[in-house]
Formats: sequence, structure tokens, C-alpha cells
Amino acid sequence: MFEVVAESGEARRGELQLNHGKVETPVFMPCGTYGSVKALTPVQIREVGTQVLLGNTFHLMLRPGPDVISDLGGLHGFMDWDGPILTDSGGYQVFSLRDNVALDDKGVTFRSPVNGDRVRLSPEISMHMQKVLKSDIVMVFDECTPYPATHHEAKSSMLRSVGWAATSKSAYDGEGALFGIVQGSVYDDLRVESLAAVVDIGFDGFAIGGLSVGEDIEEMNAVLSALVPQMPSDHPRYLMGVGTPSDLIRGVVQGIDMFDCVMPTRNARNGHLFTWEGVVRIRNAVHKHDSSPIDPNCGCYTCQHFSRAYLHHLDRCREMLACTLMSIHNLHFYHELMTALRKRISENTLSDFASRLLAQFADANRVNSSA
Amino acid sequence: MFEVVAESGEARRGELQLNHGKVETPVFMPCGTYGSVKALTPVQIREVGTQVLLGNTFHLMLRPGPDVISDLGGLHGFMDWDGPILTDSGGYQVFSLRDNVALDDKGVTFRSPVNGDRVRLSPEISMHMQKVLKSDIVMVFDECTPYPATHHEAKSSMLRSVGWAATSKSAYDGEGALFGIVQGSVYDDLRVESLAAVVDIGFDGFAIGGLSVGEDIEEMNAVLSALVPQMPSDHPRYLMGVGTPSDLIRGVVQGIDMFDCVMPTRNARNGHLFTWEGVVRIRNAVHKHDSSPIDPNCGCYTCQHFSRAYLHHLDRCREMLACTLMSIHNLHFYHELMTALRKRISENTLSDFASRLLAQFADANRVNSSA
Repeated sequence: MFEVVAESGEARRGELQLNHGKVETPVFMPCGTYGSVKALTPVQIREVGTQVLLGNTFHLMLRPGPDVISDLGGLHGFMDWDGPILTDSGGYQVFSLRDNVALDDKGVTFRSPVNGDRVRLSPEISMHMQKVLKSDIVMVFDECTPYPATHHEAKSSMLRSVGWAATSKSAYDGEGALFGIVQGSVYDDLRVESLAAVVDIGFDGFAIGGLSVGEDIEEMNAVLSALVPQMPSDHPRYLMGVGTPSDLIRGVVQGIDMFDCVMPTRNARNGHLFTWEGVVRIRNAVHKHDSSPIDPNCGCYTCQHFSRAYLHHLDRCREMLACTLMSIHNLHFYHELMTALRKRISENTLSDFASRLLAQFADANRVNSSA
Repeated sequence: MFEVVAESGEARRGELQLNHGKVETPVFMPCGTYGSVKALTPVQIREVGTQVLLGNTFHLMLRPGPDVISDLGGLHGFMDWDGPILTDSGGYQVFSLRDNVALDDKGVTFRSPVNGDRVRLSPEISMHMQKVLKSDIVMVFDECTPYPATHHEAKSSMLRSVGWAATSKSAYDGEGALFGIVQGSVYDDLRVESLAAVVDIGFDGFAIGGLSVGEDIEEMNAVLSALVPQMPSDHPRYLMGVGTPSDLIRGVVQGIDMFDCVMPTRNARNGHLFTWEGVVRIRNAVHKHDSSPIDPNCGCYTCQHFSRAYLHHLDRCREMLACTLMSIHNLHFYHELMTALRKRISENTLSDFASRLLAQFADANRVNSSA
């Protein structure tokens, strides 16, 4: 299912064979929360270079619910996306409702943020929902350990997640790949213990959960440094919910294969645009008369056809087209970044390229922030 | 510039040659208020069958303003639409602000609804703005007579519009076609007097303003019956701000060549979808599990790829994609309707077709309303 085709330092280039097609890694996965990557049609999602989408089990369980998705034959047909889909387990979202969640050993009960109904979520229910979605990659149900957590809290949370990982594996009888999740907060010993336990249970891939939840960059990198080299090299490694372009570069350098994040689409809707020269904030008045594109070297539909002045104007008028055009640009940038990283891995020139790019982004964003 | 190529009763099929291309009439023009047909890219606007767009001078004058549009070289390049654009004069919108408008013989002064600034609009300013926009069809600046109005009020308003039409013609020195506007409320004698006056001034086309402003269908039809047969047959006739599919059919039968209305896009955003079998209200719970498209006979992107259940779901989740997909369907329907009417004019079979369609829409909507 997963084959490493090139390496450069710790970084790997690979191919992931899934039910709905092949994915070249390292890969970034856009978020299609409610069965829609916000403001984009599936044609546009494909055109920006997307290989695989993320769907949110928690959201889709509440709306439209398993019955509708089941009647419509799964998530792919429902949203007209014929490429691979990874679904999360719902764990991350349910624990973000913290005040309205009652936790027990078998799962969680919570109040629906949509209509206030009492809803149950457990490894078994999450596996059933992900089977109904016909997900290509199914994630085990876990607890996303809050940050900060004491060692004691982090350990007890991690052990619960390990138990639920085993239950998830027993419960899942669909046709997707099943990924385990490593927890343990910022504690290296807990991360290593969690990894050993989920590897022992046995999965098609291994994810790192509980990062990008409030810890600083150094803490995230410390966890990755301690953990990633010990992850099975013949299985895909997925860093969940990460991150900025720089986070992706650092992750790839450390040997991560898969990423997802709402950042490119959410930031696009707020006029925060990623380029090779750093961030462009389209709401700044300096763009009002600017006839140049977001990035003159970008090949996306938006940069090929529209000026900064037009995007600034649409954003000011709160036109939905602003969200569409800026999401196209940001996702295209993220995918181009991953394409560039894959190429450098094949050429075994990743290290220099990554260092230069990280410095360039840091410099550009320092300049932009002071402007 | 305008050639009638076929007739069927009072209805005409024609070709309108404009700076940015040829338009087949009768034609429906989608509204691109702020330089964007809401929720659609120019690629999608073209794909649904749009020949010519309407831009709003009032809105574009306030945001982004003439300086930006001028710097960017006109509206076509700004919004990446290379087809023809008709711009209204701003009169309709400024008079809809009624309480914040001070009217004098030379024009109007109003408070910007965007930022409260005092703004001036007059025939000269409207002509300048439409020249800056590089509009293919420029509308004279007029007063949209409120409804209801007494004969006296309607006459004095109509005479002011006639004066402004003459001023507009003198002031306009751009390269677009210039259209006059007939006012006169629901009074046949005033409509005829207004028509004679604007024909006397001389324009490239003639529009009927001040309808679809609150009067009932019978009153609108009575005005059209009295007025349209007297309009120059060798010039395009444009019924402004109209309307429903049935309004369009009745207008074409009476000899109208051009229409614009926010209805297909606005109603789409509210889940109100037009089909040959009547209106589908996607928010109704009956669509929750419905795997069929909005209209199984429709060739639009939305109907070819998505179910009613998916659209119902996106709409409930307030996903922007709902607006995009439903706007695509409604505009495609409007354009297909106009294509069908043009075909029936060429075949000289319009009358039967129109009667059947009007009855079918009336029946279907009666059934849908009672469901």
C-alpha cells in the first residue's frame, strides 16, 4: 500500500495506493469539513492540485448524518469527489467542546453544537460512521490530549487512546486503510510508549496527534525529533492538523509524509495569502490600486486572471467570489510547495532547499509584519 | 448594430453587435453588481450560457470607485469578463435610498450607504463613470418613478428623466452604445409621451424603466401592450429589472429583446430553484434524502454532478458552495429558457409554446405551493 521511492536525509518521497487512487507523498490534504472544501467546486479542488481530501466525521455525523450519506452511497458520490478521502475520527472536534462532553471508558457523550441533542461517540460509532462514508483512510477514535497537560494527565489520556485504538481496529470492518494515532502531549517518553503500543496493535499507517494545539514551534519540533525516527519507515506518517508552510517544510525534513490543516482555506477567507515571497495581506490599503497578481510567478487560476486590486475590492465588498479565488490561490500554493519538496527529495537536495526556504519565509514575513 | 433575423407575432429574434462581441436576442443578462456575479467565477458565468452581463454603476462608483477601475483599465479586465457588459446608470439604486437623497434639476446628492459620505450623481457623472467602466451598453441617467405615483407625480418625474436623457446623450463621449429609458409609471399616455421624447433625442436602443417596482402583473402587461408596439422595431428593446421566467416569456411574446434581474442568483442563494416543472425549494425537508438532481433533464454542472440531498445539506450548513451550485443551475435555466424562446421565434411557433409553458409554470407552482 505504501512504497518509499526516494529519500533525502530523514525525508522520504513515497506512493500511497488507496481505494480511490494513488497519492504521491509528502502530501497536503485540504479540509472538506461538511463534504465541501469551503467555497470550491470539486473541479476547482482538482485543478489546484489536490490529490486527497480530508472529511470530518464529527461534522458529517451531525449533518447530514449517517442515514443520508448511506442512502447516497458514501461521501465520494455525495460530494462528487472521485479521488481518495481520509476521514478523521471525530475525536479532535468532540474534545474541543470540552465543557459539554461527558467522558467514560467506552467513549463520550456530548451536546450537539447544531441542535443541542445528546450525541454519543465511541470507537465503534466512529468506525461505523467512517465505513458509511466509504473513507479511503480511516482514523482510529482517540482523545486529543489538551495542552498544556501534566505528565500524569497526558499518560492517562494516552492510555485511553491506546485502548480505543485497539477497540477501533476490532470494530472496523470496512475496506479503507486504518491508521493508528500516537498521543502523549510534549512528553517524549509517553510519545515513545504510545508509538510502541499502536505499532503493536498494527495499522496501515501512523499519525501524530495532539500537536499544533497551543505548544510552541520548539516543543513541536522536539516531539517530532524524538518520535519520527522511531516510527516504522515502511508505513506512512501523518502529522495531524499541521500547519503553516514552514511547519510543512520542517515536518517533511523530519520524515513526515502527510499533513492536513484548515489554514490555507481559512486564511484565504480572511485575505491572508501565501506566496514564495511571504504572506500578502490583501486587506491592506496598499493593494487598492495594485494591478499585479498575488504572485507574478504563480500559475493558479486566480493569479493568471485577477489583480490584487480586484481581490482587495471583492474582499471589502464581502463578495463570496473573494473566498473562492483566494482559496484557489492558497491551496495551489500549498500543493506547489509539496510538489517542490517531493522533487528535492528525489534529487536528494532537500536540506539546502528547505533551509533556504525557511529563511526566506521568515525574512519575508518579518518584512511584511513591519510594513 | 441591431438586426432582426426572425419574427413570430410581435416577438423578434435578433443579433446585437457590441464592442465585446455579438449577442443573440432575446437575451437575459445576469447581474454583476460589484464586478462579480455573486459566488461565480467568470469561467462559470460563461459555462452557464451568459452572453452579456450587467454591471451596477452606483455600486461600482462607491466601491472600488472610478479611480481604481480607471487604473485597472475598465470593468472587463478588472473582473476578467471579455464578453459584453451593459451598465445601468445608477438612477435606480440612488432613488431606492429615497430618505437619504436630495433631488435637484441637475441630479441628486445622497449619503453613501457604505460610509455615509455625501455623494453626487448626475447625468454627466453617470456618463463619466460608465465611460470609465468601458461599458458596451451605457444607460442614460434617469429617475425611476416610485410606485404608486399619481399622474401628476409620474409626469413630472418622467419629464425630468427626458431632460436627463438629453443631457446624458450630450455628455457621453465613450465608445459604447447608448440606450434611452422610457418612464411614465402605469399611465399609457405618459409612457407614449416619454417614448416619443426619447426617440426624438435618438438612441441606439430603448429601455422600459420603472416596472417590476410593486405593480401587479396585469398592470405591467397593460403598459407593455400599450408601449412595445410603438417602440422602434429596428432598435433593441430592453425591459429593465424583469423578472420571473413567466415575466420573460410574456415580455418576449410582446416584443422585448433584453432583460436583467437579480432573481435567478438571489433566489438561488435562498434555495429557490427554477425548473421546467416549476420551482424546487431545496430547503424543504422532503429533499433531505433525495438522490435525484434538481432537474433530471437539466444539463448544468450542478444537475450533472449533485443531488438535491447534497444541495439541501450544503444549504443547511450555510456552505458557500451551495450558493455557487444553485446560482449555476438558476442562471443555466434562465439562459436555456431564452435559447428555447429564440428557437421558437425562428420556427415561428412561439405563441403555442409560450402559452403551454406559462400554463405549465402556473400549474406546477400551484402544486408546489400547496405541498
